[in-house]
Amino acid sequence: MEPYELTLAQSSAAIAAGELSPVELTGSCLQLIDAAEPHLNAMVTRTAEAALAQAEAAQEQIARTGPRGPLHGIPYGAKDLYNTQGVLTTSSSAVRAEFVPDQDSAAVAALNEAGMVLLGKTHTHEFAFGGITPTTRNPWDTTRVPGGSSGGSAAAVAAGYFPIALGTDTAGSIRIPSSVCGTVGIKPTYGRTSRYGVASLSWSLDHVGPITRTVADAAVVLGALAGYDPRDPASVDRTAEDFTVGLGAGVEGLRIGVPQNYYTDAVDPDVAAATARAVEVFQDAGAIIVPVTVPLSERYKAAEWAIMLAEASAYHRETMRSDYELYTEDVRAFLEVGETILAADYIDAHRHRQQIKTAWQQLLTDVDLVLAPTTPMPAVPADQLMYEWADGTREHATEGYTRLCIPANLTGLPAISVPSGFTDTGLPLGVQLIGRAFEEATVLRAAHHFETANDHVGRLAPFQDATAGRA
Amino acid sequence: MEPYELTLAQSSAAIAAGELSPVELTGSCLQLIDAAEPHLNAMVTRTAEAALAQAEAAQEQIARTGPRGPLHGIPYGAKDLYNTQGVLTTSSSAVRAEFVPDQDSAAVAALNEAGMVLLGKTHTHEFAFGGITPTTRNPWDTTRVPGGSSGGSAAAVAAGYFPIALGTDTAGSIRIPSSVCGTVGIKPTYGRTSRYGVASLSWSLDHVGPITRTVADAAVVLGALAGYDPRDPASVDRTAEDFTVGLGAGVEGLRIGVPQNYYTDAVDPDVAAATARAVEVFQDAGAIIVPVTVPLSERYKAAEWAIMLAEASAYHRETMRSDYELYTEDVRAFLEVGETILAADYIDAHRHRQQIKTAWQQLLTDVDLVLAPTTPMPAVPADQLMYEWADGTREHATEGYTRLCIPANLTGLPAISVPSGFTDTGLPLGVQLIGRAFEEATVLRAAHHFETANDHVGRLAPFQDATAGRA
Repeated sequence: MEPYELTLAQSSAAIAAGELSPVELTGSCLQLIDAAEPHLNAMVTRTAEAALAQAEAAQEQIARTGPRGPLHGIPYGAKDLYNTQGVLTTSSSAVRAEFVPDQDSAAVAALNEAGMVLLGKTHTHEFAFGGITPTTRNPWDTTRVPGGSSGGSAAAVAAGYFPIALGTDTAGSIRIPSSVCGTVGIKPTYGRTSRYGVASLSWSLDHVGPITRTVADAAVVLGALAGYDPRDPASVDRTAEDFTVGLGAGVEGLRIGVPQNYYTDAVDPDVAAATARAVEVFQDAGAIIVPVTVPLSERYKAAEWAIMLAEASAYHRETMRSDYELYTEDVRAFLEVGETILAADYIDAHRHRQQIKTAWQQLLTDVDLVLAPTTPMPAVPADQLMYEWADGTREHATEGYTRLCIPANLTGLPAISVPSGFTDTGLPLGVQLIGRAFEEATVLRAAHHFETANDHVGRLAPFQDATAGRA
Repeated sequence: MEPYELTLAQSSAAIAAGELSPVELTGSCLQLIDAAEPHLNAMVTRTAEAALAQAEAAQEQIARTGPRGPLHGIPYGAKDLYNTQGVLTTSSSAVRAEFVPDQDSAAVAALNEAGMVLLGKTHTHEFAFGGITPTTRNPWDTTRVPGGSSGGSAAAVAAGYFPIALGTDTAGSIRIPSSVCGTVGIKPTYGRTSRYGVASLSWSLDHVGPITRTVADAAVVLGALAGYDPRDPASVDRTAEDFTVGLGAGVEGLRIGVPQNYYTDAVDPDVAAATARAVEVFQDAGAIIVPVTVPLSERYKAAEWAIMLAEASAYHRETMRSDYELYTEDVRAFLEVGETILAADYIDAHRHRQQIKTAWQQLLTDVDLVLAPTTPMPAVPADQLMYEWADGTREHATEGYTRLCIPANLTGLPAISVPSGFTDTGLPLGVQLIGRAFEEATVLRAAHHFETANDHVGRLAPFQDATAGRA
C-alpha cells in the first residue's frame, strides 16, 4: 500500500506512531499527482517545492514534540477560489490569471496553522459558476465530468492526490462533485465556517467546507474550519465543537425523513435504487423512517437562481466592464442575465427564500434528518452535457446537478453527500443527509454509520490501477 | 394635577399604592384626547369604549391580586402600522382604509399581556414613508409638523394622551418626532424587538420601539418589547434583560464620542448650541469626551435610500398595480423610483452598508457612546417644508430630519433621542446617544443621567394650557 492511499485518519495514526513521515507521505502524493494529472487535469497550480519544505518542517517538529494534532503533516489541496498567500489564485478564470494574494483565506490559514501541507490549487468551473468543471475529468471514467464547481477538489481526492481538499458550495458545489466522484463532501450550516478570502459567487448562498474520502475525516477537518470570524459578515459566534465525538453512536431512534416529492422527480433509476437501499440501511439500524413532503418545492429554482445571478453580477460588475472578453461565454451569459434583475425581484426571491427556510425548519421539528439523492444522475460524458431523461426531456448537467442540492443552500441547513453505491457501469452515486441548523454532529453521525454499513469507506477511484506512478 | 399629566412611573406607583385607578387614569386621558384632537389630529382610530372596558378589567384584577407589573392599567397608543386585533390598521393610507387585522402584532400583544390599555392608533406618514406626518400637528406649536413618520405617537405622548406610544424607525422615525416634539424615543438594536405584524417600510432597516416622556419609562417598556420571536426573521435570540437596573449609575468614566464631522454639517445654530451644552453636562458628570470622526459618512445617504426605496417598492409591488390611485403622490413617487433600482445596485448598497457597519463597530471600540444632535433643525412650519440654511441652500424636511438618524439604521446600533432644550421661540430640540449593539442599557443610563441633569424629565407640551379639557 502506497502512502497516498491512506485516509487522513490512517496517515494521522501512522505519523503519530512514527511509522510514516510527512515527507514520505507528501512525496507519495506528489508522485501520484505527476502521474495522474495528464489524465485528470484537476490542478491549476502545484506547489511541490514549497510542500516538500513544509513537510520537512512538519517532520522535524513532530520528531521534536510530537504532532500538533491530527492534521499535522497531512497534505491537502484548495479550490482555486481560496486565497493562498504568495500562490496564484485564479478562480479558474482568465480574469484572475495573474492574481497572487498577499494573505491566506481564513480556511487556508486554519489548515496551515494545524500543520497541513498545501500541495496546490484545484480547478473550479470559472468563478464557481457551473456544475461540470470543464477543465477536469472524472477519475472513475476520464471521458466524463467530475461535477462542479469544486470538480478539481473532488477528482483529486477521489484519485488520491491528497485526503482532503477545500471546496465551496453555493448551489451544491461541494456535494455535486462528491456525488459523481464518490467522495464525501459536507456543506456546513450557513455561518459555521468563514468565507474570508474566498472569491464569492453569491454571498448569501456561499458555504465553505471540506471534501474527503471518509466521514470521519470530514469531521476532523470541519472542526479545524469551524469558528467565528468577524471578517465574514455572515459568520455566527458559536462555541467550538469537536465533531468527532459521538461519531460512532449509531442511528437508532433517529427520525429520518424520506421525501416523497421533488427528490423523486426526474431521478435516474440507479440513483433511485441506491437511495432506496440507503433507506433500508438506516431502517435496519433502528432509525425511524418517516415519509415527508418537502415544502414549497415549486419555488426553489427561481429563488436560488434569482439570488445567485443577481449577487454574482454585483460581484463581477466592475470586471465585466473592464475585462469582458476574458470571461468564458457561458459564465458571461449568466452574469448578463444577472445584470437585468431588478432589486424588487431580488428582494422577492429573498422573501420566498425566508418562507422556504421557515417551512424547512418546521419540517425538521418532525424529523432529525432528511435523506435524499445528492444528484439525480451520475457523471455525464464531457462531450454530452445535455442529459436525456426517459420521457425524452433534456436537462443541462448544471441544472440537473444543482436541482436537488439547492434546498440546503437556500435554507443554510447543513448537508453532507456520502457515496451510496455505483451504477451498473461503475459510476459512483451519492445520497445526502440534511440536518437542523448547527447540528452537523447529527449529520456526520448518520453519514458515518451509513458509509460503514454500506461498506464504502475511503475507496479510491479504480483509475489508480491504470496510472504509471502507482504500485 | 390631572392623572394624564403623570408619567408611566408616576401612574404605576400611584396604581400600586391604590391612589389611582386605571379607570380614572384612562378617563382622564380620554378626556384630554377629546379636547386636543381637533387641534392635533394625532389619532387615526380611538378605542375609548374598549379601553374603558379594559381599564375596568385591570382595575378589578389589581384590586384582587395587585398589579401584574409596572405596565398594568397604563394607557398607550400604537402607530397605525401595528396590527391590532379587531381594530382598524390603516398605515395612514387609503390603500388600507378598511384593513382590520385578526391578530395583534407581537409588540401590541406584549403590551396587552402586560396589562396595558390601548387608547387607539396614531397617525404616521403614509406607510411610514416620510418625515413630517402631514395629518398631524406639533403640540408645542400647532402651525408646525410633529416630524415623522411616528408623528402621531410623539405628538400624542408630548400632549399627554398616554405616557407611552409605539413607533417604528427605518430612517429615524422614532427619534425624529421625539426630537421635534420633546419626547424620548429609543430605536433598539436591530433584532432586539419583534416586528411581527407591523407593516414594513424596509425590512432590513425597520425597528420597533417606544416613545415616552422619560428615559426611565422607555426602559420599562423596552423590557416588555424585547425578546426573541421566530416569526420575525431578523429577531435575535438574546437573554432577557431588565433595562431599569443600573439606570441611575451615572456616567463617570464613560467614554463619549463627539463627532467632528457629518453631525456638524448644516446644523441649526440652536441645535449646535444645545448639543454643545449636552457635551458639557456629560463632562461635568465625569464622562470622558472624545472628539471622533464618523467613518464613511459620504456613503450614508446613498446606501440608506437605495435599500429603503428598493425594499419598499418590493413590499408595495402588488398594491402599486392594483391600487395605484390610492397612494398619495409623494409616496407613489418614492415607490416608482424604487421600482427602477437594479438588484446589483441594491446589493452594492448592502456591501457599502456592511463596510459602514464594520467601521462603526471599530469606532465603538474606542468610545462607549456617540453623542450627536438627532435632527439638524427643529419642527418646521406645516406649510413650508423646504428648510433654508444660512448659506441659502434649501433642504426638504424629510431629508433634513433623516440625515443624522440614518447611521443608526444602517448599522442597526441602538440609539435614543432625548430632549436637549429649546429654541428661542420655544421649540423642543433633541440629542441622540448611539451605543454598541445590544448595549441599550448603557444608552439608557447615559440618557437618564442627561435628562435629569438637564432638568427636563417628562415635560408635557405647553399646548395643554390652551386646551379646554385641562385643569
